[in-house]
Amino acid sequence: MRILVVNVNTTASMTDAIATSARRYARPDTEILATQPAWGPDSVDSFMEGYLSAAAVVERVATFEEPFDAVVLAGFGEPGREGLREIVEVPVLDITDSAAAFACQLGYRYSVVTTLARSIPTIRESLRNAGLLDRCASIRASDLSTLELEQDEERTRERLTVEARRAVDEDGAEVICLGCAGMASLDKELEQALGVPVIDGVVAAVKLAEGLHDYGLKTSKVGAFATPSPKQIQGWPRR
Amino acid sequence: MRILVVNVNTTASMTDAIATSARRYARPDTEILATQPAWGPDSVDSFMEGYLSAAAVVERVATFEEPFDAVVLAGFGEPGREGLREIVEVPVLDITDSAAAFACQLGYRYSVVTTLARSIPTIRESLRNAGLLDRCASIRASDLSTLELEQDEERTRERLTVEARRAVDEDGAEVICLGCAGMASLDKELEQALGVPVIDGVVAAVKLAEGLHDYGLKTSKVGAFATPSPKQIQGWPRR
Amino acid sequence: MRILVVNVNTTASMTDAIATSARRYARPDTEILATQPAWGPDSVDSFMEGYLSAAAVVERVATFEEPFDAVVLAGFGEPGREGLREIVEVPVLDITDSAAAFACQLGYRYSVVTTLARSIPTIRESLRNAGLLDRCASIRASDLSTLELEQDEERTRERLTVEARRAVDEDGAEVICLGCAGMASLDKELEQALGVPVIDGVVAAVKLAEGLHDYGLKTSKVGAFATPSPKQIQGWPRR
Amino acid sequence: MRILVVNVNTTASMTDAIATSARRYARPDTEILATQPAWGPDSVDSFMEGYLSAAAVVERVATFEEPFDAVVLAGFGEPGREGLREIVEVPVLDITDSAAAFACQLGYRYSVVTTLARSIPTIRESLRNAGLLDRCASIRASDLSTLELEQDEERTRERLTVEARRAVDEDGAEVICLGCAGMASLDKELEQALGVPVIDGVVAAVKLAEGLHDYGLKTSKVGAFATPSPKQIQGWPRR
Amino acid sequence: MRILVVNVNTTASMTDAIATSARRYARPDTEILATQPAWGPDSVDSFMEGYLSAAAVVERVATFEEPFDAVVLAGFGEPGREGLREIVEVPVLDITDSAAAFACQLGYRYSVVTTLARSIPTIRESLRNAGLLDRCASIRASDLSTLELEQDEERTRERLTVEARRAVDEDGAEVICLGCAGMASLDKELEQALGVPVIDGVVAAVKLAEGLHDYGLKTSKVGAFATPSPKQIQGWPRR
Amino acid sequence: MRILVVNVNTTASMTDAIATSARRYARPDTEILATQPAWGPDSVDSFMEGYLSAAAVVERVATFEEPFDAVVLAGFGEPGREGLREIVEVPVLDITDSAAAFACQLGYRYSVVTTLARSIPTIRESLRNAGLLDRCASIRASDLSTLELEQDEERTRERLTVEARRAVDEDGAEVICLGCAGMASLDKELEQALGVPVIDGVVAAVKLAEGLHDYGLKTSKVGAFATPSPKQIQGWPRR
Repeated sequence: MRILVVNVNTTASMTDAIATSARRYARPDTEILATQPAWGPDSVDSFMEGYLSAAAVVERVATFEEPFDAVVLAGFGEPGREGLREIVEVPVLDITDSAAAFACQLGYRYSVVTTLARSIPTIRESLRNAGLLDRCASIRASDLSTLELEQDEERTRERLTVEARRAVDEDGAEVICLGCAGMASLDKELEQALGVPVIDGVVAAVKLAEGLHDYGLKTSKVGAFATPSPKQIQGWPRR
Repeated sequence: MRILVVNVNTTASMTDAIATSARRYARPDTEILATQPAWGPDSVDSFMEGYLSAAAVVERVATFEEPFDAVVLAGFGEPGREGLREIVEVPVLDITDSAAAFACQLGYRYSVVTTLARSIPTIRESLRNAGLLDRCASIRASDLSTLELEQDEERTRERLTVEARRAVDEDGAEVICLGCAGMASLDKELEQALGVPVIDGVVAAVKLAEGLHDYGLKTSKVGAFATPSPKQIQGWPRR
Repeated sequence: MRILVVNVNTTASMTDAIATSARRYARPDTEILATQPAWGPDSVDSFMEGYLSAAAVVERVATFEEPFDAVVLAGFGEPGREGLREIVEVPVLDITDSAAAFACQLGYRYSVVTTLARSIPTIRESLRNAGLLDRCASIRASDLSTLELEQDEERTRERLTVEARRAVDEDGAEVICLGCAGMASLDKELEQALGVPVIDGVVAAVKLAEGLHDYGLKTSKVGAFATPSPKQIQGWPRR
Repeated sequence: MRILVVNVNTTASMTDAIATSARRYARPDTEILATQPAWGPDSVDSFMEGYLSAAAVVERVATFEEPFDAVVLAGFGEPGREGLREIVEVPVLDITDSAAAFACQLGYRYSVVTTLARSIPTIRESLRNAGLLDRCASIRASDLSTLELEQDEERTRERLTVEARRAVDEDGAEVICLGCAGMASLDKELEQALGVPVIDGVVAAVKLAEGLHDYGLKTSKVGAFATPSPKQIQGWPRR
Repeated sequence: MRILVVNVNTTASMTDAIATSARRYARPDTEILATQPAWGPDSVDSFMEGYLSAAAVVERVATFEEPFDAVVLAGFGEPGREGLREIVEVPVLDITDSAAAFACQLGYRYSVVTTLARSIPTIRESLRNAGLLDRCASIRASDLSTLELEQDEERTRERLTVEARRAVDEDGAEVICLGCAGMASLDKELEQALGVPVIDGVVAAVKLAEGLHDYGLKTSKVGAFATPSPKQIQGWPRR
Repeated sequence: MRILVVNVNTTASMTDAIATSARRYARPDTEILATQPAWGPDSVDSFMEGYLSAAAVVERVATFEEPFDAVVLAGFGEPGREGLREIVEVPVLDITDSAAAFACQLGYRYSVVTTLARSIPTIRESLRNAGLLDRCASIRASDLSTLELEQDEERTRERLTVEARRAVDEDGAEVICLGCAGMASLDKELEQALGVPVIDGVVAAVKLAEGLHDYGLKTSKVGAFATPSPKQIQGWPRR
């Protein structure tokens, strides 16, 4: 199968990192196609940037040139998710929900370690709307922005480890979800250090996509995600 | 004061109608500035359209030429609301929350009458996130799209009246919120017919904006709605 | 318009302070009528006192001699609110809900700073019933009773500042609601000191009352707040 | 032990009926003292009447001449409950919570059958605050006011049976709670007719009071129900 | 009446201790029959042990030789409760729910002090399903296993006192529920030390059983707890 | 990988049917091992039977002779799930949660179609504890017991289709979850007939197991699912 993994920002190095992460545990017969929006912010750390990203993500997927069997939306906050579910028939997975869904199979309570404190409300609402908030022990911020994660890997490792350990020791987390696609490569190392399962949402979403595809399941077109009626959209698509 | 009322689609006749509605009960010293996005869908009836609208709304407000003291976002689903709260300092009101907040002062349970059934999940999550879902007796669809509302006023009146009456008689609603900016002009007529308060969200948002402004209140810049850090945004603003 | 602001206790100096507070941000054409119950406790810091106050408030409003267009109930715990909504047609606002409703427009999470710890359960239930609890970061007590607030303004300022700052720093509050009518005059000073919006519920309720009145809205008489059937009430009104 | 059963209205025949009901299943060594407020409404069917009743109930219990070991508050809506918990040390039970607490031991979901539809919001909030709403299948109104219940026993029996049967057949109720002290005498007859347990809250409250008393338990005076500080209460007690 | 008190493990000394506890506050005409499963773990501190216990408890009660009027299930986690409700007609009480139901009559918030931290999720879900979680201030572990409770009474007293005091001082508990049948004998001593009501669930369940029995109430056989249809059960009962 | 699929009852033909279902969409390199308890009920349609099943399931898995990489518990109500999570290190999936987790990726609201109405409370609590209840549009009973499902396939197809269609048309379901392992073979046929995704929980659980295994994830042993301390278990294992 072919999974279209969508980085939600315009930073090509992150697109590459996400693709690498997605391929790590993908099955041999799964092809990972990675893409990024043609315009928009170079990272998403605020609501405003999320809105731009969502529109650009919708545009990118709507105009993607090759066929694909599932979409993985690789940005916390899920910019554009419901819109993608409307315009494609294949399953659309996001990394927040996928990580938390995996976590709930492995422990009673999980925590999310994310970038900046300002992202916490978005993640909180996302988990609540997915029904997964009640088993969330905490959402902790590393105080590193999305781009800072990449700049100094040692610092990133240290800050994530500190917050993840607090989640386990103080908040009662039994599983840790990494709250940003840029943290992916640290999963197994952290797992070793903390003694609890650590989940990268990109991998979780890829595995869910494979499972749904094997079973022949697609997005329901009855109700919330029905194909939009054709209508006039001024100045769109942009490119 | 000056309130910037933002129609979320590119249909100029709706922008006019919303401005007219906003002016009906505005105070004499309140100036209503009405605008619409420079690009995007001619109406918002789906998630996908909402995402495009959100980005275009953010752009429009960020580049608006004149000063204003508050923003009223005149589209159900609130496309772009949190983003606006980040990029401006003045209060940002939306019509779903404002209508429901007014309704909760006037009765124990209220219902929303909206356009298409597919919008119900969005409205439901919006009310839940605002904490107002528990007192929502029902969300009922008129099965008229946003643009159809304008096309045949008699049909619109009839359909809205039928659904609103069912909300009162069958669901226990004590107040009705009109779930689309395009229904605004029918508020008092419906109120007369049904014998319960009927609220147009545009008016409610204007009145809240006036109140917040009088009291000198602005959006909190500590936490979720802090100004985004400056960063590179490719191809933006679009115009 | 004429707003009847009801102090819920029998302390005349508090009635005056509340009236002053209400007038601060009222519109020029809004007349504030202030009153207090003819009997009952000189301050309300317990459930028992709240019950006496509620009955006395209902009596006071039912027998008020002049016409009015809205009622603002100026006591946390809202003694008598639903009863007032039954016996008058005009909107009835209370200061807990009004402050929290304003707060939710300005930030993601707010805190309430109140008088004694024993009031916390009442406020908590009130916010929950209004659907506003989920966005309440904390309710903190200053450990000053209603009457002590007036006795030593310096101490009041200090205690409120300490608790409000903790709410912002430790609990994640982005907005502060003052949890007692007696704290009103400190709003702008605290706002300056803390760097977040600070809301006095009396002002919020006055502004909501003005907005509802401008729009011609009244309490719904279908359902929970229908006028009670006439019946025999022994020894009532008391005066 | 001595249980003070408090009718919340001034209708002596209802006080007698409640006392009779309370005595039916009381233990031989339990003495039932019945009382009623010295002033207030002859029945409680609205919020307003509930507020008057609460104040009068607090006064009545505060000035009751004889010793007692527990209080049973025999009115739906629990007028004055928290106030009583502050001013006495003995346990205070009410009939809504007591009936629902018993019901939850006997089935998965229960329904309440009450008097007028306007009481439903009060009962709903009361059950929610007690944490018992989630297992409430429905609250159904007989459309008979408190006083009408007594006037025509045949009609009362018929209306209650109809609504209770609907609760079982349509709403999935496995247990029925009688939502008004005036329905008490019909419990066993309805139980026979419906084939599910039927609970009169007065009996449930009496049995809980006996249990708490046997175990030597009293109201906690740490926190919400601490004794109010002495303060000046103008014109009180009334008699 | 005759109450069958079921210890959920195979430790005879605990069965005796529970019986003693149950008899302390039982009425003179209440006979306490105590039993324990014929097989299973000698204490229940994990889910796995709880499942074995549940099956063995169901077997024990189903084959009990003498008549009884109610069942009290004396183990936190309620192993087998719903199964017992299906196979007997008399009321089945458990000690978690009973203690919390009593606690909610005496204070606004209560805490549970239990054995090991691993039991907290079970207790949490049990309270949530009973609707009693919202008023639960905290669940604290003493870090003593069920059997360790018996081994060193002095240590048990000390650890419970420390955690209970923290619940009152730090978490806002107004009432304490003892979270294990093995802690029963310390109730009054702790109550004295802490100044808040302390509830042993065995006593609470016995008193509820007496109350339900006096009122002639039995488990509803309409719905969730209907008698199972006869079917083939291989190798059962085991003895 | 090797997945141990556990039928929760002793009916060998159902074990075979479940194994067949599990193999349908398993990957070529996934080996399905199917087993059933050595004792217990021939089907699970009540709480009591669920408790027996849970103990027998725990015993069966604890003594299983061959190695395996994941467990799929193929019975609604999840008898023994948490116990299995304690005693094995590999992931343990159940069919209720797995089906609902898949459903939430494909539509906004899903319904469950199950066997008898008496199972509805169990399923409801299971979904609530998994956080998935809020998006559950309805749980509908076919009124066929587990064993009746197998007896007359035509009747089963008809009853399921009727209830599933009602779920879509009347309750707003966008996805259907089959609520019993015995319904598995009808998934694609129903999907065709209804036009919405239809999910067999056995398949969903197998696919989740494959995904978790690929990613190297195991059950967290910190907290709720830590290995139980060794202790004396009388008469166990039974065989």
